[in-house]
Amino acid sequence: MSRTAGPVRADVEEAARWLSGRVVPTPVLRSPVIDEMAGARVLLKAENLQHGGSYKMRGALRAVGRLVEAGHTGVIAQSTGNHAVAVALAAREHGLAATVVLPVDAAPTKVDGARAAGAQVVFAGTSVEERVATARGLSAETGHPVVDAYDHPDVIAGQGSASLELIEQAERAGTPLDALVVPVGGGGGVAGACLAAAGSGIEVYGVEPVGCDSLARSLEAGRRIPVAPAPTIADGLRPSCVGELPFAIARTALRGVVRVDDDEIAEAFRLLLMEAKVLAEPSGAAGLAGALRLPAEAGAARTGVQPEQRRTIGVVVTGGNVEAALVARLAGRRPAERAATTAGSTR
Amino acid sequence: MSRTAGPVRADVEEAARWLSGRVVPTPVLRSPVIDEMAGARVLLKAENLQHGGSYKMRGALRAVGRLVEAGHTGVIAQSTGNHAVAVALAAREHGLAATVVLPVDAAPTKVDGARAAGAQVVFAGTSVEERVATARGLSAETGHPVVDAYDHPDVIAGQGSASLELIEQAERAGTPLDALVVPVGGGGGVAGACLAAAGSGIEVYGVEPVGCDSLARSLEAGRRIPVAPAPTIADGLRPSCVGELPFAIARTALRGVVRVDDDEIAEAFRLLLMEAKVLAEPSGAAGLAGALRLPAEAGAARTGVQPEQRRTIGVVVTGGNVEAALVARLAGRRPAERAATTAGSTR
Repeated sequence: MSRTAGPVRADVEEAARWLSGRVVPTPVLRSPVIDEMAGARVLLKAENLQHGGSYKMRGALRAVGRLVEAGHTGVIAQSTGNHAVAVALAAREHGLAATVVLPVDAAPTKVDGARAAGAQVVFAGTSVEERVATARGLSAETGHPVVDAYDHPDVIAGQGSASLELIEQAERAGTPLDALVVPVGGGGGVAGACLAAAGSGIEVYGVEPVGCDSLARSLEAGRRIPVAPAPTIADGLRPSCVGELPFAIARTALRGVVRVDDDEIAEAFRLLLMEAKVLAEPSGAAGLAGALRLPAEAGAARTGVQPEQRRTIGVVVTGGNVEAALVARLAGRRPAERAATTAGSTR
Repeated sequence: MSRTAGPVRADVEEAARWLSGRVVPTPVLRSPVIDEMAGARVLLKAENLQHGGSYKMRGALRAVGRLVEAGHTGVIAQSTGNHAVAVALAAREHGLAATVVLPVDAAPTKVDGARAAGAQVVFAGTSVEERVATARGLSAETGHPVVDAYDHPDVIAGQGSASLELIEQAERAGTPLDALVVPVGGGGGVAGACLAAAGSGIEVYGVEPVGCDSLARSLEAGRRIPVAPAPTIADGLRPSCVGELPFAIARTALRGVVRVDDDEIAEAFRLLLMEAKVLAEPSGAAGLAGALRLPAEAGAARTGVQPEQRRTIGVVVTGGNVEAALVARLAGRRPAERAATTAGSTR
């Protein structure tokens, strides 16, 4: 395959250096209960503790910083939430005007977050196509560029810095990663993870909700395949198609995609809350849901493996912006018995 | 006043050095929303992310480590929960046999936590007097010493290491503390905070639930005053009397005690969860509840103060061990309007 014009590992390293001091160097959390359930040493990169409540802040800051260097005075973004809020915050920090395009059914916390950061909020339909069209129209009108939520080299490099930090934190702790698991929406974060892990031997896995598996289908088909996203509590993982740039990176570097259902995501949410003591949004918890299925998926049952022989799995807990009512509902659920067989699969 | 025989700042420093590598160097969290509500820069020391889910682990590890050095092979502890779990975990780590005495109405997570750590669990009534009598009886039978939850120099020094870490983290971040706020049960943590802050000029405040204010009453009276603890969601802050050693330290070093009611504790819980993205138990959230009343309490209204002129208040979020049903109930509450006047007071 020919070399893509996209970002490479050096871009992630440069983004990480530039972001140092501008973002929270989020902690890596551990839980004996989660380790036991995963049959592995699980390192949780708590990007829900990031500025703006998600790792989207990294990509947004990096991309907006680049726009400032290029002399722009405004920026436009569209997303279902976290990316828009992150761009709004990044723009305020850099003194740029921000306009964000949200779906009409956007979560109130995300609308409030964007407005609190001083952004102008424009509502446009419920589909990514409607939002993209509106964003392009605004860009043509104002001359301000659009920062895409995932199909953008600076966004990919910025989000990859979370994975790079985790890889380095794991090394410093004496528990280097064997695998790295990242939830997949449009694929910016998982592409950044692939770049961060390049040359390290670390297996990178993406996680998609069942029925929102554009990346898995695209990898199977060898070309980008859009899907009609199924309903899922992981609202951040519902783009209809993986981005072009993320797909180009993932198709050569990604080890596999794990599909998880809402019950598994809800259980991962509960484990993060009750055991690791942090609040993740369902999309942010999906990475752990995938990691919990990984040993079985990889065909290597871990029963009887001594703790010191266990593999080390890094998981990026990507965000924590969630409605209080959903927290109450998910926290109040009794932990489900994990089904012996589930709907997921690895390519 | 004559010098007490209790621990001093050097003991906290020594405990911190000894605990380094044995405990999680927990992160300091920030939230713009919390800063705004407090009218101050609020640094949240997330000891809910500590091993065992609470800062009690620090005191327990330090005290049990000392017992091992002295040749003991077992240890006995009594508490309503976190201290017992922490001693059980510390004993397992050091290879000691642990027996923990819990009230018959102990929270199931805490009973499970102690048992999962391999401790023998003994139930004894509902009052601290019943538990102390049972613990002493077991000690006489077995020869194993009792590690008290707060009236113990190594426990105070160990818990003080959380405050010392926070003071140092705040300095390194360029935002040195003006005040330090710690919830008060038996007073071990707040006494440790007083020692950690000794000579620094940092004002240390304790926080007690309304009606569970043995420390505040004792400071007013100049001698230890027991109370019949009122019901409160902060179950860890209900000892009937502040410890002798903690009182001796606090009476000369503590700036004041803030009393908070259950509504204020519930609001602090919700802020930690939804804004700082971490799960605190109500007792662990009480420190923030106190910090939110501090500017008014101190008679210095902060309205109109520029962010860069704001005071910096450190808060120890002491623990995160809480039942899922209570999380669901508290997360589902609508944020209460904060009453203009509340029941609290500062001495």
